Amino acid sequence: MNNFTYHNYTKIVFGKDTERRVGALTKDMAAKVLLHYGGGSVKKTGLYDQVTASLREAGVSYVELGGVQPNPRLSLVREGIDLCRREGVQGLLAVGGGSTIDSAKAIAAGVHYDGDVWDFFDGTPIRNPILPVGVVLTIPAAGSETSPNMVISKEEALLKRGSGANGLRPRFAILNPERTYTLPLYQTACGVSDMLAHLMERYFTHSTGVDLSDRLCEAAMRTILNVAPRLKDNPEDYDARANIMWAGLIAHNGLLGMGREEDWASHGIEHQLSADYDVAHGAGLSVVFPAWIKYVYRENLPRFVQWAVRVFDVDLAFYDQDAIVLEGVRRLEDFFRRMELPVRLSELKIDTARFEQMSEKAAPVGNLKKLNAADVKEIYKLAL
Amino acid sequence: MNNFTYHNYTKIVFGKDTERRVGALTKDMAAKVLLHYGGGSVKKTGLYDQVTASLREAGVSYVELGGVQPNPRLSLVREGIDLCRREGVQGLLAVGGGSTIDSAKAIAAGVHYDGDVWDFFDGTPIRNPILPVGVVLTIPAAGSETSPNMVISKEEALLKRGSGANGLRPRFAILNPERTYTLPLYQTACGVSDMLAHLMERYFTHSTGVDLSDRLCEAAMRTILNVAPRLKDNPEDYDARANIMWAGLIAHNGLLGMGREEDWASHGIEHQLSADYDVAHGAGLSVVFPAWIKYVYRENLPRFVQWAVRVFDVDLAFYDQDAIVLEGVRRLEDFFRRMELPVRLSELKIDTARFEQMSEKAAPVGNLKKLNAADVKEIYKLAL
Repeated sequence: MNNFTYHNYTKIVFGKDTERRVGALTKDMAAKVLLHYGGGSVKKTGLYDQVTASLREAGVSYVELGGVQPNPRLSLVREGIDLCRREGVQGLLAVGGGSTIDSAKAIAAGVHYDGDVWDFFDGTPIRNPILPVGVVLTIPAAGSETSPNMVISKEEALLKRGSGANGLRPRFAILNPERTYTLPLYQTACGVSDMLAHLMERYFTHSTGVDLSDRLCEAAMRTILNVAPRLKDNPEDYDARANIMWAGLIAHNGLLGMGREEDWASHGIEHQLSADYDVAHGAGLSVVFPAWIKYVYRENLPRFVQWAVRVFDVDLAFYDQDAIVLEGVRRLEDFFRRMELPVRLSELKIDTARFEQMSEKAAPVGNLKKLNAADVKEIYKLAL
Repeated sequence: MNNFTYHNYTKIVFGKDTERRVGALTKDMAAKVLLHYGGGSVKKTGLYDQVTASLREAGVSYVELGGVQPNPRLSLVREGIDLCRREGVQGLLAVGGGSTIDSAKAIAAGVHYDGDVWDFFDGTPIRNPILPVGVVLTIPAAGSETSPNMVISKEEALLKRGSGANGLRPRFAILNPERTYTLPLYQTACGVSDMLAHLMERYFTHSTGVDLSDRLCEAAMRTILNVAPRLKDNPEDYDARANIMWAGLIAHNGLLGMGREEDWASHGIEHQLSADYDVAHGAGLSVVFPAWIKYVYRENLPRFVQWAVRVFDVDLAFYDQDAIVLEGVRRLEDFFRRMELPVRLSELKIDTARFEQMSEKAAPVGNLKKLNAADVKEIYKLAL
């Protein structure tokens, strides 16, 4: 097990009606905030009205910036930074999913930075003060509600990149599973795919002596695999929604990756798909991840065997070790299909046209196997 | 799944040589601290010298109070409170195991309280400011290094009681598994028993729809059961020490109990054993827990079956459900025996003499089944 430091100070407020506490929680964080959200759904569901009423009741001033899109854009982040500076805002309240939270984090990091905020996605570490961020989560997926990470798209350059700093962890996160009842199956499934990926990127490692985090990752994966399909028949199954929402947070709060080297190749390879084709992140992952496993599993065969056996109950007596792993991959694909997600690029109507340039942009990436552009291209091909 | 709030802000610094960072971490917390520790072992191992050198190097002033004993005493807590007031101390640094940390927490809670600190163990909530506590952990067991709980013994009354407040969570916790190489098997095993109990007290619940935390608890239990025996043959197996140390923290940071009602009957019943007979907490638990399960499992048969099957691999096709649970208990006892822990009161040379008064003091206790004094007495009898 490797040395590590873990400091997750996010206050988690989980359960029914918890959005009522947003005013009081925000007030503890800042007297004036930027209320950041996406499109119409928070207004349609009444959440916007509830949140603003709670802010007013608590005596919190706010200015607003809506319009966050999936694969959140750098242009809106820059607009938010200007607005925060102009209005003397002291914190951000993100109401929405991972895109909204990530956009809020990027704004929070940029307000007290003299250069261009894209620098942070280009290798510059965040050393300046970061405005505090609070969250009301509506889509369980990205885990951004307690994570120190953010992903932003520079639309004109077809680039989607991540950055992180522990100070980006939100101060509080409100999670009401009932607020996810209205998520369509596709969005629910994309979220599930994202959280599974967060667990697998931590699981597939060369680190040894990580028994506890192995088993915790397996526990979270098994829970997701068992619970998610219930939402196909009954989107208002509270306990299923609650377990998925809780799993999304646990999968990416960092705890389950402590002491181990992680591998974020699939995320990197997917980000380039999203950047080029504006694919939903979760749908890109359900295509990329099985292909990545097929390409790299021989780098650490026993670990992939362990995964297939412990997570997917593949029989250890299966005829050979490669077959055990490939049977695990088949079961993963079956799960994605059951959730009505794509598992091949062809289903997304993506062909080989941009493989060359996408591979160049995505590489080098990965830890379990260091992937160069030629490797990434092979993985895109395996995903066809 | 029940509503919950979770706020664990402890900074965890884990791995080899991490105690070198204690001076810098303490300085971020307070300019002058009370250095609190137990007996000779921190001096014998050189840890005391390392910690004090690091404090001096960082320019942190400190006063000292050693002498914490297992089942930490109220009298020493009172002495610590007086010392902190007299010396104008702003924080505490606990170097040791759960007893030392709990003693430090009680002092931290008492310094700014006008009444007697025992009030907090008698039902008075902690509303006054609490001094910040930092930890260098030497014994993985109690989980007190990030938990909001503390347990103190009022020696003259033969009482051992717990109290808690979120503000009691330490600001930082340094965990170096190498520091546990010198723990004798008995102390290692007692720690393992305590962490298993922390997981089981969370696991055995009437709460439903808690799939994720069920599986996370099972993952931690399985890891402990698999890893701990390696320490019998090789006390300097770093990865085994690291997994056990990490498991002790995970078992009691509260995360795995979120959304579920917990049951702390076995802890309560054991505390009375420790108070009356000064039994090591973990050795008391390895005796009490199997007896408690035998007494209560019919209150929620499917849950105990799930535990036996998923944690101990008892075959679901076993001839009847009671037999499945009892086979699980037998395997738990076998594990304790393998770790050279007692599983019967007779092995601790405890007879029925004080059952009456101990039961009266321990009851009422429990959630899965509300136990009165007569119930507790039956459990002591089952443990004979």
